[in-house]
Amino acid sequence: MTSDYQAKKQFLASMISVYGRKPVLEMLEDHSLLIHKLHLADSNKPQGIIKDIIRAAESRDVEILYHDRKSLSRISRNMKQDQGVVVDVHNPKMNLLSKAALKSTEKTGQWLLLDNVTNPQNVGMIIRSVAAAGINGLIIPRQANASLNALVVKSSAGTLFKAPILLCDTVSEAIEIIQTQGLNIAVLAGEAKEDVFSFAATDGVGTVYVMGNESEGVSKETRKAATHALSIPMHNEVESLNVAVAASIVAYATQIS
Amino acid sequence: MTSDYQAKKQFLASMISVYGRKPVLEMLEDHSLLIHKLHLADSNKPQGIIKDIIRAAESRDVEILYHDRKSLSRISRNMKQDQGVVVDVHNPKMNLLSKAALKSTEKTGQWLLLDNVTNPQNVGMIIRSVAAAGINGLIIPRQANASLNALVVKSSAGTLFKAPILLCDTVSEAIEIIQTQGLNIAVLAGEAKEDVFSFAATDGVGTVYVMGNESEGVSKETRKAATHALSIPMHNEVESLNVAVAASIVAYATQIS
Repeated sequence: MTSDYQAKKQFLASMISVYGRKPVLEMLEDHSLLIHKLHLADSNKPQGIIKDIIRAAESRDVEILYHDRKSLSRISRNMKQDQGVVVDVHNPKMNLLSKAALKSTEKTGQWLLLDNVTNPQNVGMIIRSVAAAGINGLIIPRQANASLNALVVKSSAGTLFKAPILLCDTVSEAIEIIQTQGLNIAVLAGEAKEDVFSFAATDGVGTVYVMGNESEGVSKETRKAATHALSIPMHNEVESLNVAVAASIVAYATQIS
Repeated sequence: MTSDYQAKKQFLASMISVYGRKPVLEMLEDHSLLIHKLHLADSNKPQGIIKDIIRAAESRDVEILYHDRKSLSRISRNMKQDQGVVVDVHNPKMNLLSKAALKSTEKTGQWLLLDNVTNPQNVGMIIRSVAAAGINGLIIPRQANASLNALVVKSSAGTLFKAPILLCDTVSEAIEIIQTQGLNIAVLAGEAKEDVFSFAATDGVGTVYVMGNESEGVSKETRKAATHALSIPMHNEVESLNVAVAASIVAYATQIS
């Protein structure tokens, strides 16, 4: 029973719920995406774009479930903006964070962890870069970061459905699993003396790089747990980079060094 | 007379005109900035934030010039949004593009050129990363890219006033000067076989890297003039990166290789 429960949890973790009439129609019309289910509020009138949505779902045999308005908002988690429409899209590379998920046979795995990145545009851009760079994965604690909604889909340029993402609830939960697995925890911090390029070039242990909040940087709690503090070298008295840019540079630094 | 004219042109080229009441007040209150002149429409009533703006300018001896509404809009180039207020901020590292400006004694200079980057947020993020990476400069043909307005200031996180920027009017003007100077012209293109990291590591000639439009990429005209086509390696079937992310990776690639 436990393993059934785990399997179901893993399966659900690979789903991204996208809401809003136009975004949902776009998802259904994109045949490169694996669509699981379409959820509709029974208050929607079957005309206009709702009619198009139903037709698109039927044409590719996507199961349609009808809910009352309140139940639907529990699925979308955003009653104000869901417009009575949610679609579950499957990302085969998205999973729950676990010790097993971090196991890298080469002991040289590279992950990014988001610690309070709250701007959906930044989260989307980071997802796109992580997928492109080809690192092992992006760890996203759900409670601490922008939720994976239509804005993130847009700024990820659709790569949210292709990126290797590991989900958990809180940052401390992520830190605990990472520590148990014996991986380096490297926080990015402007004042750190060691630079990320030299570190990435010499290190032989698997590492999780932590990207912090847009204004505050990495949280105190995470800094305490860190095994390394790294900086991106900067000139012209620039004090920091946009977090999505910094994450992208780190993701590529680990791949080319 | 020609040299007087040139000197004046160069001086004006180092000025960024920022409009809008709140942005202008923020500029005046930031004492790390070199403020040249404050321009006010004589239709502004000297109360509220206008009073604060005048007081801030007087407290640091910034010259205040009054114009009729139409003349002011010629300075702001944006009558709809200038709110009757413009401030000229000096960037000591901003200049006109010329053969002299590209002369690099080491013959290993690295520049970025923007070819139709139209989103001000992207331009601002690129300015920030170019300044941070410490490459020789960012070439911005004014007619082809987002204009350096308050949106760019914001997304550059203020680095617009510190970044080494070279201005000209058109992309073809830039290409001509770069060619005369004998520099490599490397266009970034997803389908290119040579990758930017290997290129940056081995090359010994000064290079201008060209970043293209958000949807269309580098223009045909520029592709024809290119000596190299380079790509950033990508995984997980990702087809492209955000242009600001790509520019940042290129800027750092040239510095660490």
